[in-house]
Amino acid sequence: MEFELNILGCGSAKPTTRHQPTSQLLNVRGKYFMIDCGEGVQTQMQKMGLSMLSIGHIFISHNHGDHIFGLPGLIGTMDLLGRTAELHIHGPQQVGELLDFLQRTYYADIGYKVLFHPVDTQQHALVYEDRSIMVHSIPLRHRLPTAGYLFREKPGLPHIRRDMIDAYQIPVSQINNIKAGASWTTEDGTLIPHERLTTPATPPRSFAYCSDTVYLPELKDIIRGVNLLYHEATYLHERALRAEQTLHTTAVQAATLAKDAEVGKLCIGHFSAAIKDEDALLREARSIFPRTILANEGLVVGI
Amino acid sequence: MEFELNILGCGSAKPTTRHQPTSQLLNVRGKYFMIDCGEGVQTQMQKMGLSMLSIGHIFISHNHGDHIFGLPGLIGTMDLLGRTAELHIHGPQQVGELLDFLQRTYYADIGYKVLFHPVDTQQHALVYEDRSIMVHSIPLRHRLPTAGYLFREKPGLPHIRRDMIDAYQIPVSQINNIKAGASWTTEDGTLIPHERLTTPATPPRSFAYCSDTVYLPELKDIIRGVNLLYHEATYLHERALRAEQTLHTTAVQAATLAKDAEVGKLCIGHFSAAIKDEDALLREARSIFPRTILANEGLVVGI
Repeated sequence: MEFELNILGCGSAKPTTRHQPTSQLLNVRGKYFMIDCGEGVQTQMQKMGLSMLSIGHIFISHNHGDHIFGLPGLIGTMDLLGRTAELHIHGPQQVGELLDFLQRTYYADIGYKVLFHPVDTQQHALVYEDRSIMVHSIPLRHRLPTAGYLFREKPGLPHIRRDMIDAYQIPVSQINNIKAGASWTTEDGTLIPHERLTTPATPPRSFAYCSDTVYLPELKDIIRGVNLLYHEATYLHERALRAEQTLHTTAVQAATLAKDAEVGKLCIGHFSAAIKDEDALLREARSIFPRTILANEGLVVGI
Repeated sequence: MEFELNILGCGSAKPTTRHQPTSQLLNVRGKYFMIDCGEGVQTQMQKMGLSMLSIGHIFISHNHGDHIFGLPGLIGTMDLLGRTAELHIHGPQQVGELLDFLQRTYYADIGYKVLFHPVDTQQHALVYEDRSIMVHSIPLRHRLPTAGYLFREKPGLPHIRRDMIDAYQIPVSQINNIKAGASWTTEDGTLIPHERLTTPATPPRSFAYCSDTVYLPELKDIIRGVNLLYHEATYLHERALRAEQTLHTTAVQAATLAKDAEVGKLCIGHFSAAIKDEDALLREARSIFPRTILANEGLVVGI
């Protein structure tokens, strides 16, 4: 089942012809979780064949334009497309002001509800949970209150071994019990242990999003072992001072965090408009953490 | 000298992969006048090599998202690009609410002033004037207060005939006088009439923008004889009832207005997302007014 990240935009505040402002879509078995919502997301989703109505929740990192100015248009378009399902938007308190203004001024009469859930950017806490996934906030440090987000699948059930079910002629009515951990006793009283009837569950997958933020080495404990880390890498390390001043991260720092947190893969983005050669960022990151890739509009990363 | 229209977006509210929401840029001798400002204008301007800092004035037709949701990002980017010159935004009173909110919430500290000038959408009145151009509002009728805009060059000065200046050895200091209408007397007392020293001024050029609006035949008197008319043509005429209900225009109606107003050329846009074959709109319009063209992102129309 899908657990994949769609990059809709990975530029930074100053626009370029190479990149769109920040937005991503995590597809968890057909449910879409949007993370940040820069201007132009609708166009990018349409180019990638992603349905806007499949978005149930939007997680906003912080209230800077390049992470949220796609919201005004997206909310309106969802109404034009006939949305009736509630839309949940999570983010720092400030984001609520934009939503209030939009609802008061433009969207008093739309056909669905937009519900805002403020996120405490100081806490690593549960933000959202459903049957299959948990989302926790990650406290980041930027020029405004900012949160990253950690998406973790809940542990799944083991997979039934079709061949064993057939061999022991186990009725279909028992399959859910067996998935849930039961064993099976045949008519002649032989106990077939649960482990023989199943293969282990798919390991739960995880994704962490950290942007925008200054380098925070202590994040390694929160994001340890995630399958995929998206981390901003606005600058080359030669501009480490600039990164610190503007509360951004260099490629070296992002890769160091990925290494220290022993993540599966690192995807870097939020590229400064001044960087013409993003491969230089990639080389820098890979010198520390080889399993690094560059974000790009249209990229889909299976997790 | 340039007097040309750049189409940045000519779709309607529901986004498509074919078109961006509405925005245009009228380039008057290097000064940029933006008309409407849909989401994605920055990307489109960069693709077309148009500098955002050359925009002095923005004219907004009405407060619908597909005509203004590019403003939040554009204002911020101009600051990132180091703008210090005032930015003037003209539009119906409601547009001021968005600007107030943006300035209060996002742009309290930017390095330039954004000045809002409310436009009375009931009046055909002067909205802006400088040395070379006059802009008048055009009262339109849509679901919100809406104004179109009429751009007219002021009459220019006649052109100096270089050959005559040389032949009569007229000093450079006299050229402005002659442009302004003076004649010249040679040393032997011969009067060289003004008309002999100059060729007539370039005729003033004009452009009218009408979107969004229901068909208003009476506009013909306001826009009579303009060189270029941009008019919305959201629907084919088979959907004339829908056009009337939603206060939009069909291609036939736009062309009828162009014909009745004896304009030089008609450019149609604001295409409904449901229209896959825009050539059908073009054929319909040309059957009534042959000098019709289809708007498209990236199109530059010399006037």
